[in-house]
Amino acid sequence: MTAPRGKFISLEGGEGAGKSTLLAGLREHIERHGIALVQTREPGGTAVGEAVRAIVLDPALHGLAAETELLLMFASRAQLVREVIEPALSTGQWVLCDRFADASYAYQGGGRGQPAPRIAELERWACDGVKPDLTLLLDLPVATGRARAAGRGDADRIEVEADAFFERVRASYRERAAAEPQRFRVIDASQSPAAVLRAATQALAALLGEAQA
Amino acid sequence: MTAPRGKFISLEGGEGAGKSTLLAGLREHIERHGIALVQTREPGGTAVGEAVRAIVLDPALHGLAAETELLLMFASRAQLVREVIEPALSTGQWVLCDRFADASYAYQGGGRGQPAPRIAELERWACDGVKPDLTLLLDLPVATGRARAAGRGDADRIEVEADAFFERVRASYRERAAAEPQRFRVIDASQSPAAVLRAATQALAALLGEAQA
Repeated sequence: MTAPRGKFISLEGGEGAGKSTLLAGLREHIERHGIALVQTREPGGTAVGEAVRAIVLDPALHGLAAETELLLMFASRAQLVREVIEPALSTGQWVLCDRFADASYAYQGGGRGQPAPRIAELERWACDGVKPDLTLLLDLPVATGRARAAGRGDADRIEVEADAFFERVRASYRERAAAEPQRFRVIDASQSPAAVLRAATQALAALLGEAQA
Repeated sequence: MTAPRGKFISLEGGEGAGKSTLLAGLREHIERHGIALVQTREPGGTAVGEAVRAIVLDPALHGLAAETELLLMFASRAQLVREVIEPALSTGQWVLCDRFADASYAYQGGGRGQPAPRIAELERWACDGVKPDLTLLLDLPVATGRARAAGRGDADRIEVEADAFFERVRASYRERAAAEPQRFRVIDASQSPAAVLRAATQALAALLGEAQA
């Protein structure tokens, strides 16, 4: 008997939304159910992806074209799907990913103006049909997120963008969530970390129920 | 009065075809005509592009997916077009580039099996309409080229491919040349370096004539 296919959960959200804290809590919650979990991130998660991450977040790289950024993000993603995500899912492991394709629609699409059909076409072949079963969107007013993130030290190449950029990112995320309500769960990230984790585990209950059944 | 738009010349060919030697000779020939020339290469030519080059040619990176390689090559190219090639051409400088988009059709298409329509779609928006005025293809039997390249020391991640890979690369290059005879000039690279340079400068004569007119 082969193991049932694992579940793929992605976590999305802007700066200061509390993704790192939630990832740790979610990981513990899922593993407590006896499920083998692979946690990864974008851009990154593979040797190639981490090299791409270093390029994309380098604050010294002024003038990185929007097209270049989009292609680099999908290069990292194409490798992550084939090297990490699909092998894990196909052997029954779950995958928890800090950002996935929705982030390109939000940052390179909404933020940088790359057309959605262009992103969709890249997603079609670069992701090889792999799509999250559940996407948790940590939603937060831009000012609140930036105030939280400000204490963290040096900002990367994307974090130094203006508020208007992050407003477009947020709006794109919310549009995507509204268009795919079955896959997305929007969580109010202005709540306490405990309340955010509670909302996330509630969103996971159905997937965990299937896995236990 | 604004300067007339510069000319864009790309040089293509497999391993050991003599591209480096020809590039030096061509550069001298063009500059002797009083033309300001920008010489660059792919992947590379920009800070981002050289970082991508380090990834793509790293022999330690086993398992780089064909899709990832294709996206990385176009990321380097998108940046090169916007940061180097188009600014040079639009101010009247000529550009001499060691490989351009045809190399993706040959290596990622013919060599790795990525579909030509996928590459064409990337070319459409990543290159922003920039296309070589003249493409010189140094054509050589695979065995001859590999024997020449063998003396150079450590092979990169692409150079270690099997002969069948390079046969497909060569066939793809020749198909592209046959499909666009106005843009391509195929040069027999088994000739002496002097004869190869002579063939290349003959191919350039029309463009140089326009520039002098």
